[in-house]
Amino acid sequence: MLLEKGQKLLFIGDSITDCERQRPNGEGLFFALGKGYVALVDALLQSVYPELGIRVVNKGNSGNTVRDLQERWQEDVLDQKPDWLSIMIGINDVWRQYDTPLITEYHVYAEEYEKTLRNLVAKTKPHLQGLVLMTPFYLEPNPEDKMRKTMDEYGAIVKKVAADTGAVFIDTQAAFNVVLEELYPATLAWDRVHPSYAGHMVLARAFLKEVGFEWNRG
Amino acid sequence: MLLEKGQKLLFIGDSITDCERQRPNGEGLFFALGKGYVALVDALLQSVYPELGIRVVNKGNSGNTVRDLQERWQEDVLDQKPDWLSIMIGINDVWRQYDTPLITEYHVYAEEYEKTLRNLVAKTKPHLQGLVLMTPFYLEPNPEDKMRKTMDEYGAIVKKVAADTGAVFIDTQAAFNVVLEELYPATLAWDRVHPSYAGHMVLARAFLKEVGFEWNRG
Amino acid sequence: MLLEKGQKLLFIGDSITDCERQRPNGEGLFFALGKGYVALVDALLQSVYPELGIRVVNKGNSGNTVRDLQERWQEDVLDQKPDWLSIMIGINDVWRQYDTPLITEYHVYAEEYEKTLRNLVAKTKPHLQGLVLMTPFYLEPNPEDKMRKTMDEYGAIVKKVAADTGAVFIDTQAAFNVVLEELYPATLAWDRVHPSYAGHMVLARAFLKEVGFEWNRG
Amino acid sequence: MLLEKGQKLLFIGDSITDCERQRPNGEGLFFALGKGYVALVDALLQSVYPELGIRVVNKGNSGNTVRDLQERWQEDVLDQKPDWLSIMIGINDVWRQYDTPLITEYHVYAEEYEKTLRNLVAKTKPHLQGLVLMTPFYLEPNPEDKMRKTMDEYGAIVKKVAADTGAVFIDTQAAFNVVLEELYPATLAWDRVHPSYAGHMVLARAFLKEVGFEWNRG
Amino acid sequence: MLLEKGQKLLFIGDSITDCERQRPNGEGLFFALGKGYVALVDALLQSVYPELGIRVVNKGNSGNTVRDLQERWQEDVLDQKPDWLSIMIGINDVWRQYDTPLITEYHVYAEEYEKTLRNLVAKTKPHLQGLVLMTPFYLEPNPEDKMRKTMDEYGAIVKKVAADTGAVFIDTQAAFNVVLEELYPATLAWDRVHPSYAGHMVLARAFLKEVGFEWNRG
Amino acid sequence: MLLEKGQKLLFIGDSITDCERQRPNGEGLFFALGKGYVALVDALLQSVYPELGIRVVNKGNSGNTVRDLQERWQEDVLDQKPDWLSIMIGINDVWRQYDTPLITEYHVYAEEYEKTLRNLVAKTKPHLQGLVLMTPFYLEPNPEDKMRKTMDEYGAIVKKVAADTGAVFIDTQAAFNVVLEELYPATLAWDRVHPSYAGHMVLARAFLKEVGFEWNRG
Amino acid sequence: MLLEKGQKLLFIGDSITDCERQRPNGEGLFFALGKGYVALVDALLQSVYPELGIRVVNKGNSGNTVRDLQERWQEDVLDQKPDWLSIMIGINDVWRQYDTPLITEYHVYAEEYEKTLRNLVAKTKPHLQGLVLMTPFYLEPNPEDKMRKTMDEYGAIVKKVAADTGAVFIDTQAAFNVVLEELYPATLAWDRVHPSYAGHMVLARAFLKEVGFEWNRG
Amino acid sequence: MLLEKGQKLLFIGDSITDCERQRPNGEGLFFALGKGYVALVDALLQSVYPELGIRVVNKGNSGNTVRDLQERWQEDVLDQKPDWLSIMIGINDVWRQYDTPLITEYHVYAEEYEKTLRNLVAKTKPHLQGLVLMTPFYLEPNPEDKMRKTMDEYGAIVKKVAADTGAVFIDTQAAFNVVLEELYPATLAWDRVHPSYAGHMVLARAFLKEVGFEWNRG
Repeated sequence: MLLEKGQKLLFIGDSITDCERQRPNGEGLFFALGKGYVALVDALLQSVYPELGIRVVNKGNSGNTVRDLQERWQEDVLDQKPDWLSIMIGINDVWRQYDTPLITEYHVYAEEYEKTLRNLVAKTKPHLQGLVLMTPFYLEPNPEDKMRKTMDEYGAIVKKVAADTGAVFIDTQAAFNVVLEELYPATLAWDRVHPSYAGHMVLARAFLKEVGFEWNRG
Repeated sequence: MLLEKGQKLLFIGDSITDCERQRPNGEGLFFALGKGYVALVDALLQSVYPELGIRVVNKGNSGNTVRDLQERWQEDVLDQKPDWLSIMIGINDVWRQYDTPLITEYHVYAEEYEKTLRNLVAKTKPHLQGLVLMTPFYLEPNPEDKMRKTMDEYGAIVKKVAADTGAVFIDTQAAFNVVLEELYPATLAWDRVHPSYAGHMVLARAFLKEVGFEWNRG
Repeated sequence: MLLEKGQKLLFIGDSITDCERQRPNGEGLFFALGKGYVALVDALLQSVYPELGIRVVNKGNSGNTVRDLQERWQEDVLDQKPDWLSIMIGINDVWRQYDTPLITEYHVYAEEYEKTLRNLVAKTKPHLQGLVLMTPFYLEPNPEDKMRKTMDEYGAIVKKVAADTGAVFIDTQAAFNVVLEELYPATLAWDRVHPSYAGHMVLARAFLKEVGFEWNRG
Repeated sequence: MLLEKGQKLLFIGDSITDCERQRPNGEGLFFALGKGYVALVDALLQSVYPELGIRVVNKGNSGNTVRDLQERWQEDVLDQKPDWLSIMIGINDVWRQYDTPLITEYHVYAEEYEKTLRNLVAKTKPHLQGLVLMTPFYLEPNPEDKMRKTMDEYGAIVKKVAADTGAVFIDTQAAFNVVLEELYPATLAWDRVHPSYAGHMVLARAFLKEVGFEWNRG
Repeated sequence: MLLEKGQKLLFIGDSITDCERQRPNGEGLFFALGKGYVALVDALLQSVYPELGIRVVNKGNSGNTVRDLQERWQEDVLDQKPDWLSIMIGINDVWRQYDTPLITEYHVYAEEYEKTLRNLVAKTKPHLQGLVLMTPFYLEPNPEDKMRKTMDEYGAIVKKVAADTGAVFIDTQAAFNVVLEELYPATLAWDRVHPSYAGHMVLARAFLKEVGFEWNRG
Repeated sequence: MLLEKGQKLLFIGDSITDCERQRPNGEGLFFALGKGYVALVDALLQSVYPELGIRVVNKGNSGNTVRDLQERWQEDVLDQKPDWLSIMIGINDVWRQYDTPLITEYHVYAEEYEKTLRNLVAKTKPHLQGLVLMTPFYLEPNPEDKMRKTMDEYGAIVKKVAADTGAVFIDTQAAFNVVLEELYPATLAWDRVHPSYAGHMVLARAFLKEVGFEWNRG
Repeated sequence: MLLEKGQKLLFIGDSITDCERQRPNGEGLFFALGKGYVALVDALLQSVYPELGIRVVNKGNSGNTVRDLQERWQEDVLDQKPDWLSIMIGINDVWRQYDTPLITEYHVYAEEYEKTLRNLVAKTKPHLQGLVLMTPFYLEPNPEDKMRKTMDEYGAIVKKVAADTGAVFIDTQAAFNVVLEELYPATLAWDRVHPSYAGHMVLARAFLKEVGFEWNRG
Repeated sequence: MLLEKGQKLLFIGDSITDCERQRPNGEGLFFALGKGYVALVDALLQSVYPELGIRVVNKGNSGNTVRDLQERWQEDVLDQKPDWLSIMIGINDVWRQYDTPLITEYHVYAEEYEKTLRNLVAKTKPHLQGLVLMTPFYLEPNPEDKMRKTMDEYGAIVKKVAADTGAVFIDTQAAFNVVLEELYPATLAWDRVHPSYAGHMVLARAFLKEVGFEWNRG
């Protein structure tokens, strides 16, 4: 597996990452990691690779856009000195354009999104052992849906940034698309954004597959 | 995998199974399955085998002993007509002997435990496609600890019943023992009984291994 | 206007109708009528036609299907002796097929839906001055979406029943479709089912247009 | 209609305007606009003119007098840069003279009321596309009632200011008087001040009539 | 004073009497008598005539009409075996005609009111040492107000019943009218019905004056 | 009566005065004056002398000693510019010596009590139309009880200060003693300090008697 | 010590015994025994004589008189089959005579008290290994106080019953009197009835002294 | 006894000491001392030695390590000027190494523990009449358990510091070991750390034995 003994793995993102994590630390006993994909990744790492002692930290904040990440980057990422960093951001950047179209101050358009993301990656990657970039996603099976199209566009930006910087790339939309062939979106999320446990497992599995996790070991 | 398309899989047990499941149904949207190993099994089945449509139901009740299961068996198991049934019971049967030793009415000793469990299995197995028996467990690494010894004794009963009836057998204590070689019990549970997410993942993985689940498919 | 002085107008339905109405009566001071389309219809009738004294009663219950209406029909409709009755039901009949596809007991398929609805209409219409049948709706602009298609099918049943029985027919889906040409669904409802005030106004206006309400009078 | 595509319409006032709006923004998803006439105006604009995209903002604060508006004018009005502004203030200015007659610090008498209102209008109107002035009101049908007489006096000041400055003028008392011919005040408000939904609809309709809203379009 | 040593004085009525009394008893330590005129009468009797030991009981129920009193008369009056009984009822009988004019089931018209009240008095007075009848009231100074006129009509019925049966008569409306010459109704009650402490003192003083209470004794 | 039209009467003291008054103002609508003797004095003044418009303000703070009054004197008394001031303090000064005898920092002994009280009176009386000094009290009938003796000593100080400065003097202990001849202390207060309504009426009546209040006027 | 290995010791009484015990059982983990003298007796027995395994059960109910004990005796005492029983009752029997003197239904006078207590003892003692009778008490140092005198009278009845039946007798008043020579009652209890921890320790120690408990063993 | 009349005894420590004490003072009426061993020591001192007037203060803070004590030492110990000081710290210093092994910032290893403790003792002892050092403990009977071994190591440090500085030494682990021979740990504490009342009594008794407390006096 890519993660090594004693390393710190930090996740940052929006409400999908947050999932009621404890504040301010985002790590510790009980349900400090929330109840989303971060907690599942941690549970899988701890139960399958207990000897590695991977330290998982959750710094997701509900409602965040990439603009919000930028503001708290020093404190919540750089000061934490993680060995591995995983970023999943962009859902709110897109969603606000569709649920509050008149409040344009809330929107983060593609150009700003890409520029900000590149900037965050540039100043952090040199300090990392590994960087993971996860695309935002939308639990909408119709690729012609307006918001799905925009989300795909943001996902393509993430892919490009990952390629340009050599980061591990996770196509969460692709992982969900497989499931959406079988399940109607309402089964996974009434609002097509905040997934059920099953949806979070899709994310956790997509992440772990790319870092070399082996379910059957031990 | 042993589970087939459209089957109903029902879990029954105590607080480890319960984990804040919704009442009375124990299935449905959002967090109806609680946040323990049942929810994790469901999340893994739904995300990896979405096309199978396995219907998972959680009928765990906090504090239950095998004596309590017997009382609600008709309504909570037989009337539900599951295809697969998983039973994990015995922790409270043992624990009450150690945390309230003077209140002997609360204790379920080994003889009654075995007899009751055999009775429940006997009258249910003919109606099932598959039966899974999970041992109770105790997150105590010292095999000479009194309560751990008693728990092991109850686990041996479960093993014997499984063997005698051809049920799928899950040795949860053995699964935990692997992890306890690396982690001190307090990391998994302050009270050595109610596990963290990682502990529940140990249970979910132990269950899934025995029913032929394949993490890497798809 | 079709409604006459001193008449009682009763609305029955699901959560769209309910909208936090007071229980058990569903009428009275303050916010007894909830805060959905029923309250808006009442507010428009009272403010524009205060001299008519139309008595509005809300008997919506969240989560109801047509099967639930049937069970409480005697108490909540017939015993109330309304002059006018408005029924909007079917969203949950359809939604459960898509958000909990495995729990088939929750589903009300088209045949049962039509039969039950016809039965309720048949035994009530003779006692009424006027009957209004509102279609269920889904705030999904893509007519090829699976759930939207099923909802349209149920709407067609309502239309047929209205035509066969001479009821006033309200095509709520059609009313929403006009708005959905301009607004993305998330603006009106994150879950595409429970509308904002603006969405409830679409319903209230659609209803009032068909009963001859005139905004500019007085 | 007077309001044009993409314009921002800001309402400011007291508890009648506030009606549990969200803070601090007073706009956004769900019930951010409260549940009073502002929310109704927005719902009618969005449902009937969805293509215009009028952005409605609610800056009402419960208990406010014109003196309170003055204190927060820069932040809550000028900094918001609205295209249209609607002001309805004066009820508390008058009410305190009648419900706490001994606490004279709470009273805002007519002279101060007029001077302050004129001042606010003077420094704001040049930046606006349109200004609406709504009179305060009192749900008391007896024109000889002391408090009603004072309220009418404040309404006359609003009318004069509107005439002098070319603002759109809404006589809310006159709109209510029509309804009060049919309904006893207690039907609309136990305290003759905070209206029911029907009362708020009277206000919303009075507003919309003066800005050219057409119910029957589309 | 008319009340004698060791007697039990029971008050029955609506929310004006109730005022958050303790249930079910309506007597006892702390604030068992509520915080309205009943508590004030008790406080004045206990503090000025402590040697008499008058036992005061509060059986007011919010929202009650004379029809509700009739239903609970056996349990809440006759079974209590009071020496003195004070009845103040009628406000809701009238109010409902004005605040929910369409829900006619809630209304108790004058004929039923008089008949029921006479019936209650007839079957109770023979068992009493003394009976006090207090009129309902409305804190509306305008005698031409519709609801005030109706309330006066009900007050006249109480007066007539008192005269016919030799009961002590308390004209609460007259007592309030004196105060209303000086104070605007909103000072005493925003809804013109539920009085402030000062309003309750008006009631307590009106009651005590008619039973011979002397403030200056002792 | 000593109090004249339009005057402001301010009460300051401890929990007996406070009685859940509203903060910070201690005056206004509803139960702003709390539910103790201050509210009763106000209710009696407003109901019997409504034309005088006496403005009552409550600045009692639970737990206060004379030392606490001194700290907030400028803000809570001098800045309020009352015409009449009533002070009742000393219960906690004494009580702490008996309920927490070991925490001597909480005790205010007689010398400090007298000196502080004289200081407050000296700097305030010149600005007042009238000053009322009420003794502290203890609902203990046994004059040989230790705490009662100390309380009597503090009462004697208040009497001396009143005599020296020409203040109106209210002997609350004497007023209670009359009642305590008839009632056991537990009837008035379980802790012999916080009185029932009847006890508060004893205080209110003692106060009003000394300022010339006439119950029977009007 | 009088208590022997494996015996069950049941306490019954009023709020002094109850002290927030868990319901319905009154025994078990955590704070099931409440936080009064019963919990202290249990803590001392368990910590000093852990090998005896004395099972302590708390069946105190707040507000109870001996009349209430009689009503629940079968279920709460006889059905529990205790080896030892301790009764402390009478405080409310007396207190109600002093705090609600007018509600005579609440009073249990000496004759009824003695008769009922004797009856309960008579039908229970034959089934017991040991019976303990604790007097009621009053934290009032003045023996001439009316309520203290009555309480002493009830204590004398308990003493007489203990002597006549050979029960172990605990004079709780005497135990408190020693402490009251040093401490003013308010230090132990504001209401002179519900003791602080120190007061409950006085009770626990008085109990344990009479059953042969030795602090210094082990 | 070592403690003398009028002395102040201050306890500092972690959650075992804290036990819901009141903040910020940690002393006073009612349950200001919490409900753990500090409250029990106080109750035993007050009830058995009431004439000494020992003032007990609780400054325990849940979760504290010796590092946290150091930070608040000036305010919570030195400024309090106690005559006697009792310190029990170290449980969290050790526990964090076992329940959150990956978050090394939380761990206080033996070297830092000893150095900090010595430093606190050094700067405080000169100002004290008496110093008591209590070992941390772990309710684990197996001396080979990893965390128990570490805890024993910290206990040895406390013993050494006590010997070097002439402090009174309390071996709490030894006191518990006696009880653990009879009781399984779960009887005293599910998490083997936070004791039941019986466990706290073990601590209180161990403390009192070393300061010369005599249960049988008086």
